[in-house]
Amino acid sequence: MPIGIGDDAAVVEPERNRLEVLSVDALVEGVHFDRAFTPPRAIGHRALAVNLSDLAAMGAAPRLCLLSLALPPHLPIADFDAMIEGLTALAARHRMHVAGGNLTKSPGPLVLDVTVAGTVKRRQILTRSGARPGDHLYVTGTVGSAAAGLGMLKALGHDACTPDNLCAARYLYPEPRVRMGLLAGRNRVAAAAMDLSDGLADAVYQVAEASGVGAVIDADALPIAPDAREWFSRLGEDPVTAAVAGGDDYELLLAVRPKLGRRLAEARRHGGIELTRIGVCTEALEVRLKCGEAADRPLPKGYHHFR
Amino acid sequence: MPIGIGDDAAVVEPERNRLEVLSVDALVEGVHFDRAFTPPRAIGHRALAVNLSDLAAMGAAPRLCLLSLALPPHLPIADFDAMIEGLTALAARHRMHVAGGNLTKSPGPLVLDVTVAGTVKRRQILTRSGARPGDHLYVTGTVGSAAAGLGMLKALGHDACTPDNLCAARYLYPEPRVRMGLLAGRNRVAAAAMDLSDGLADAVYQVAEASGVGAVIDADALPIAPDAREWFSRLGEDPVTAAVAGGDDYELLLAVRPKLGRRLAEARRHGGIELTRIGVCTEALEVRLKCGEAADRPLPKGYHHFR
Repeated sequence: MPIGIGDDAAVVEPERNRLEVLSVDALVEGVHFDRAFTPPRAIGHRALAVNLSDLAAMGAAPRLCLLSLALPPHLPIADFDAMIEGLTALAARHRMHVAGGNLTKSPGPLVLDVTVAGTVKRRQILTRSGARPGDHLYVTGTVGSAAAGLGMLKALGHDACTPDNLCAARYLYPEPRVRMGLLAGRNRVAAAAMDLSDGLADAVYQVAEASGVGAVIDADALPIAPDAREWFSRLGEDPVTAAVAGGDDYELLLAVRPKLGRRLAEARRHGGIELTRIGVCTEALEVRLKCGEAADRPLPKGYHHFR
Repeated sequence: MPIGIGDDAAVVEPERNRLEVLSVDALVEGVHFDRAFTPPRAIGHRALAVNLSDLAAMGAAPRLCLLSLALPPHLPIADFDAMIEGLTALAARHRMHVAGGNLTKSPGPLVLDVTVAGTVKRRQILTRSGARPGDHLYVTGTVGSAAAGLGMLKALGHDACTPDNLCAARYLYPEPRVRMGLLAGRNRVAAAAMDLSDGLADAVYQVAEASGVGAVIDADALPIAPDAREWFSRLGEDPVTAAVAGGDDYELLLAVRPKLGRRLAEARRHGGIELTRIGVCTEALEVRLKCGEAADRPLPKGYHHFR
């Protein structure tokens, strides 16, 4: 880095033989988080995590980020510090350079805008559009945990933030699947990839549309954590519908050619995270959910802003 | 551009033998602009212009931008469209690619976050820290016009937006000095540069501090437009103080070795904009204003957010 923060802009040296991947995402108080039950450290963590998840979905290695903050009146300085710590701790774990930023006051809600830059070899870019009929669909980690965690936090407030509440932790401190994205691109295992920011169903619909395929998802195969399943059931919701429609998981959906199963197993071993086969891409353009012996039904749609 | 908007992130190919310059800046309604007298088109224009000005100050060529918008309730769609048009029109004039973005609703004020990326050869980077005692200080365009224009808009509202009100136009549609920045870097004319986002005085203090020099500014040499001078006088303000302290001009301050005057004249001819010699860097570390025969006084400080 020839020049860092402090001059009119940040200056960086491009990496040789790499394409650059750029993404921006914002978290707005009252829309994407509620300060009543989201600790400042988690706010900072999530602001970067949602962007890292976009890089992971492209198979890109994180490189640097820029942070732009609009601060409401009366934000305690300790909260500000904790927010920055949450962001910089995650950046450090991914060896990212916080290359610059912008700070302004605002009469309104807290807004965190994060821009990330990463790099990827041309042949290793993951897109949404490479799936073909017959490809197997895999998902990392669990689905629905963050939605359940958000529900618990809304219902119980800070009391839900116990160390053994994995759902609340999944919502507050999502782990972007950067390593898995890199391995899926590097080994040319995945034909298509997308992250689950707006839920599994949304990701399946988008990959299917971009690739010109349909999909069948097997409800029984979905990796729904027992405590998330229990939470949804207690509310009288169908756990499968709630899990596939719930956002904020920041897991990866991968479409993989059937013959590449062995490479995938290797990537999974190196990545150290769970990968579950949840369905298959089809020639028929519908996106359907198969529930045991019951008749197929359309996959319930995912979470959308502006709804 | 291998992949544009639409996938999880934007993908771009780095330019050979160039460093990358990245900057982010936000405009917040109620802090940086007032929708009562700032047309939506001007809001979009300014959101990009303030970032282009940062690239200009580094001697960098603009390449692409990312836009992140937080939209308040009840923003008319026509206003949204005009805002985007204002930004894309300026981007097109600088041959910039709008490579991606993010759109979210917000319960609060309109926030526009723009990230720009540009490129520069290593030897041509302009920084704030290269000035030496004896360097001449130059400024592009005029100083104080935008501050006067903002005053007129506040006092007169939309009535101030007449085609012949150059001060209001300077505030609403600042022209970032990208070409001058490129020429100043390319010809190695400028030893230091900074843009005047927070006013001339702020820029002089910052270049002086970063370079470890002082400066003397000649009040009589300052390029203050007659209508700005008249506006400040009518309010009972000292025009020189108001002009050097006023923000939003987005001109460039350049420090130039005396013997490079001829190269500067060439750059100025190619750049097609006014350049005025306004002072000199000194060994003594103060930053002073010389007013004709009167005694020197410290240069009045510039505009600051959070004041």
